[in-house]
Amino acid sequence: MARWAAGARERIVLAAVDLFTEHGYDGTTVAQIAERAEVTRSTFFRYFPDKRDVLAAGQETLGRLLTDGIAGAPDGASPLEAVAAGLVNVSGAMSPMNRDLAPRLEAVIAANAELQQRNALKVVGLADAMIAALLARGVPDPTAHVAAELGVLAFKRGFAAWCAVDARMADDLASYALAELDQLRDATAALG
Amino acid sequence: MARWAAGARERIVLAAVDLFTEHGYDGTTVAQIAERAEVTRSTFFRYFPDKRDVLAAGQETLGRLLTDGIAGAPDGASPLEAVAAGLVNVSGAMSPMNRDLAPRLEAVIAANAELQQRNALKVVGLADAMIAALLARGVPDPTAHVAAELGVLAFKRGFAAWCAVDARMADDLASYALAELDQLRDATAALG
Repeated sequence: MARWAAGARERIVLAAVDLFTEHGYDGTTVAQIAERAEVTRSTFFRYFPDKRDVLAAGQETLGRLLTDGIAGAPDGASPLEAVAAGLVNVSGAMSPMNRDLAPRLEAVIAANAELQQRNALKVVGLADAMIAALLARGVPDPTAHVAAELGVLAFKRGFAAWCAVDARMADDLASYALAELDQLRDATAALG
Repeated sequence: MARWAAGARERIVLAAVDLFTEHGYDGTTVAQIAERAEVTRSTFFRYFPDKRDVLAAGQETLGRLLTDGIAGAPDGASPLEAVAAGLVNVSGAMSPMNRDLAPRLEAVIAANAELQQRNALKVVGLADAMIAALLARGVPDPTAHVAAELGVLAFKRGFAAWCAVDARMADDLASYALAELDQLRDATAALG
């Protein structure tokens, strides 16, 4: 009874990434995902409106954690210090599962034009969320845009670096993202 | 005879944007576009593989002009000076037609999730093209990323500013894009 109660969401995501990897995104059905995850179709639809939403899982959360972190930075924080607070907040929510799935998820997206397009728009959405949070702090317009773009780059590069190191040796994601943010800020001095 | 020889490509683009505006992107067919443009269906397909490609018209050209401009910048040019050369090169290719169509084109894209996703990936493609051109000049990695992102932002903001002023009063696009690039560079000093 209530097979969907414990861990069903994670099982669905894991099963979906497995099947997308094996058969491609287009070659995988909701019924197959549900079967592999050992949930019923109706349980699947409790968690996700559609197959495509499995890949977007956590996207809204990501944006919310970034903006909450930016909004919660101390009053005197500089634009990049506020972005750093957003990165720390979002990093805490990335689990070993996110890390383990990342390489296969990337391969699935890279193999499918529609998914690449969806993913590109998601990244735009994250940048826009950070811009709004920075503007709300009183950061002026062009600075808010630049800070947000550097934040998105730092998150992407930090996440890739985090995934690339041996899991047993790795610090938490936040330290990688912040190191990348530092490097990007330093790079602005070399723009000329 | 040879109705497609003179200006057919422009007529097709104009007719498509008109129809997308009137009936939506999904509600418009290739046959309708061809009819409005006064070309045959086979003429349409001489210029565009599909309806969606009308919207991508000039996209490859855009990327090529940006990268050619960056590659052609003087040897001693700084990363942002190279980006500026790319912006000048691409600006010269933007016609009054691009300017006139822009507001309607934006509205069509904003009204359609698939087009928004495609557009987001196009912007990623422009940034990637600029990054590659900067790396080829010997600009180191994080600096090339930051310079390219500022270049994309400057082009988007410059284009919007160019479209917003009275056409009879407007300077060329390049001066708007370069002014935005200057502002974005100045903004990096305020990142903290």
